[in-house]
Amino acid sequence: MAGDRPGEFQLIKRYFAPLAQDPGSLGLTDDACVFSPDPGTDLVLTKDVLAADVHFFGTDPAEAIAAKALRVNLSDLAAKGARAKGYLLGLALPADWTTNWLERFCNGLAADQATYSVSLYGGDTIRSGNGLEISITAIGEVPSGRAVRRSGARPGDVLFVSGTIGDGAAGLKLRLNPRLAGRTGLSTDEGDHLLDRYLLPRPRTSLASAVQDHASAALDVSDGLFQDARHLCQASNVGFEIDCELLPVSSAVERIRNRAPDLYASCVNGGDDYEILACVPVSQCDAFEASARNADCPVTRIGHAVAEPGALKLVNSGSLATSAEGGGFKHF
Amino acid sequence: MAGDRPGEFQLIKRYFAPLAQDPGSLGLTDDACVFSPDPGTDLVLTKDVLAADVHFFGTDPAEAIAAKALRVNLSDLAAKGARAKGYLLGLALPADWTTNWLERFCNGLAADQATYSVSLYGGDTIRSGNGLEISITAIGEVPSGRAVRRSGARPGDVLFVSGTIGDGAAGLKLRLNPRLAGRTGLSTDEGDHLLDRYLLPRPRTSLASAVQDHASAALDVSDGLFQDARHLCQASNVGFEIDCELLPVSSAVERIRNRAPDLYASCVNGGDDYEILACVPVSQCDAFEASARNADCPVTRIGHAVAEPGALKLVNSGSLATSAEGGGFKHF
Repeated sequence: MAGDRPGEFQLIKRYFAPLAQDPGSLGLTDDACVFSPDPGTDLVLTKDVLAADVHFFGTDPAEAIAAKALRVNLSDLAAKGARAKGYLLGLALPADWTTNWLERFCNGLAADQATYSVSLYGGDTIRSGNGLEISITAIGEVPSGRAVRRSGARPGDVLFVSGTIGDGAAGLKLRLNPRLAGRTGLSTDEGDHLLDRYLLPRPRTSLASAVQDHASAALDVSDGLFQDARHLCQASNVGFEIDCELLPVSSAVERIRNRAPDLYASCVNGGDDYEILACVPVSQCDAFEASARNADCPVTRIGHAVAEPGALKLVNSGSLATSAEGGGFKHF
Repeated sequence: MAGDRPGEFQLIKRYFAPLAQDPGSLGLTDDACVFSPDPGTDLVLTKDVLAADVHFFGTDPAEAIAAKALRVNLSDLAAKGARAKGYLLGLALPADWTTNWLERFCNGLAADQATYSVSLYGGDTIRSGNGLEISITAIGEVPSGRAVRRSGARPGDVLFVSGTIGDGAAGLKLRLNPRLAGRTGLSTDEGDHLLDRYLLPRPRTSLASAVQDHASAALDVSDGLFQDARHLCQASNVGFEIDCELLPVSSAVERIRNRAPDLYASCVNGGDDYEILACVPVSQCDAFEASARNADCPVTRIGHAVAEPGALKLVNSGSLATSAEGGGFKHF
């Protein structure tokens, strides 16, 4: 520990305790936190670990690193139809951490806590063996027995995806190779949009209630649309037919599709979307769409489930066919 | 990823899924797990992060590394009076991990799952930016409102500690400097005992019920006896008077006390004990001791709480007085 930097207890008091508003956190002054579930609820728990220069750039703004680490977990909860309540934070700081960096990291958490109505419950801060690593366990609630799994889809169910697909992966490609903007004719605004979507996932927490009420199966798209669709149909023992002409894309990704079809294919199945892929029984589709509209969350019908376990059929696939075989971003 | 090593999905299926026996884990095939609390219970959640060559030796047996990572969390739950139910595992593997290492790591978890009646609920495995890091979030249950905090001690309460103090810290010292054995006259068995106590914490899960039923405040001794006692009296706004002649020590640490008083002092306040320090109202002491006896967990009266907030008074302290001022192992 460098001389002028605070020790663990000062660190907790100064930076983390202000984030722990729920009484169950015990002000981060105890060995553990206490979570009192509402009667009749199940807890949904998820844990994602992120490492510098594996899952984010170590040079990204500290606020954005904090937000990404929290949001990828909130995305998992939303896909299960769960309302996010809070999280535990494991933070392994590199040897050269600074109080300024940590203050900005905690500011990022504070802003997201307000946006997503969650609170810090507990955690642990250690010296990292080397680079920055962040481990978040997020806690959500659903009425008992109502968590939406990957395994509930039935043949005939309609396949919906929220938002737009490909922006995050396109943003990463653009970041690694800024000349892509010229090659694909992206405007400055479009380029900025893609970079921002890579830096800051937008978890679809507002869709959780619609998913809980109407979806037969769902997951969040983090590994790549086709790879995650395959996870969903394998878990549900059905197949999917997806019409590639229906995939919702931003104007920026639309431009990439027109100018560079191969690049488009690797964006669509590139991962880092953090959109929700949901199966909805036909009888529930209108209600699901109405509920999504009320939540201000766009959803698009892109296909349906068929009675061919594990089959992923792409209609109007064009350059996407080969991408679908390749399959997704490896987070590990 | 090296060529012949499994990817993330194969890894989950082969190594982790067999550890996930609870249906709520969803076989580790979903975005999250579902935990259904028993009606009328609170959940107690704790999270410890351990890094190679900070919290354990990277060359330790994989089984022991796994056991330590899990057990330090179970110790926190026991100190809150909570019954351990399960855990989520975040694993950041170094670039040179091998399937043999991972298999042994999971064998260590499997053995402890049987010993402590817990199950794996979920988690995440990533490539580490560098060294091995393990982040565990453990889940325990207590009847609603019955989690034992650090803050409930009152003047007059008796201070108990479980097991023996100083073995873990002495084991670390012996490991770093094997010549200590000769200097302090430790037998081979005594040396082995100390090394083993450092390598493998023994969380006092069997004492959880006695703590829940009778303690006014408790914590687990991980930073050092006097440092943790100070945490407890500060949180409870009382002081403690501890009679150092009463501290329970093993025959190995007894030998160190006789031959090397200064070394003894730094062992007693060295941390890594994972014993429980509990305050018990006088009216509850007999019942607490009887319950501990039933649980086969030795507990020793070492002092009592006094009405002097924050004061830590050591009686018969000898060489321990200076150690008490210094204070504890820095886990950060």
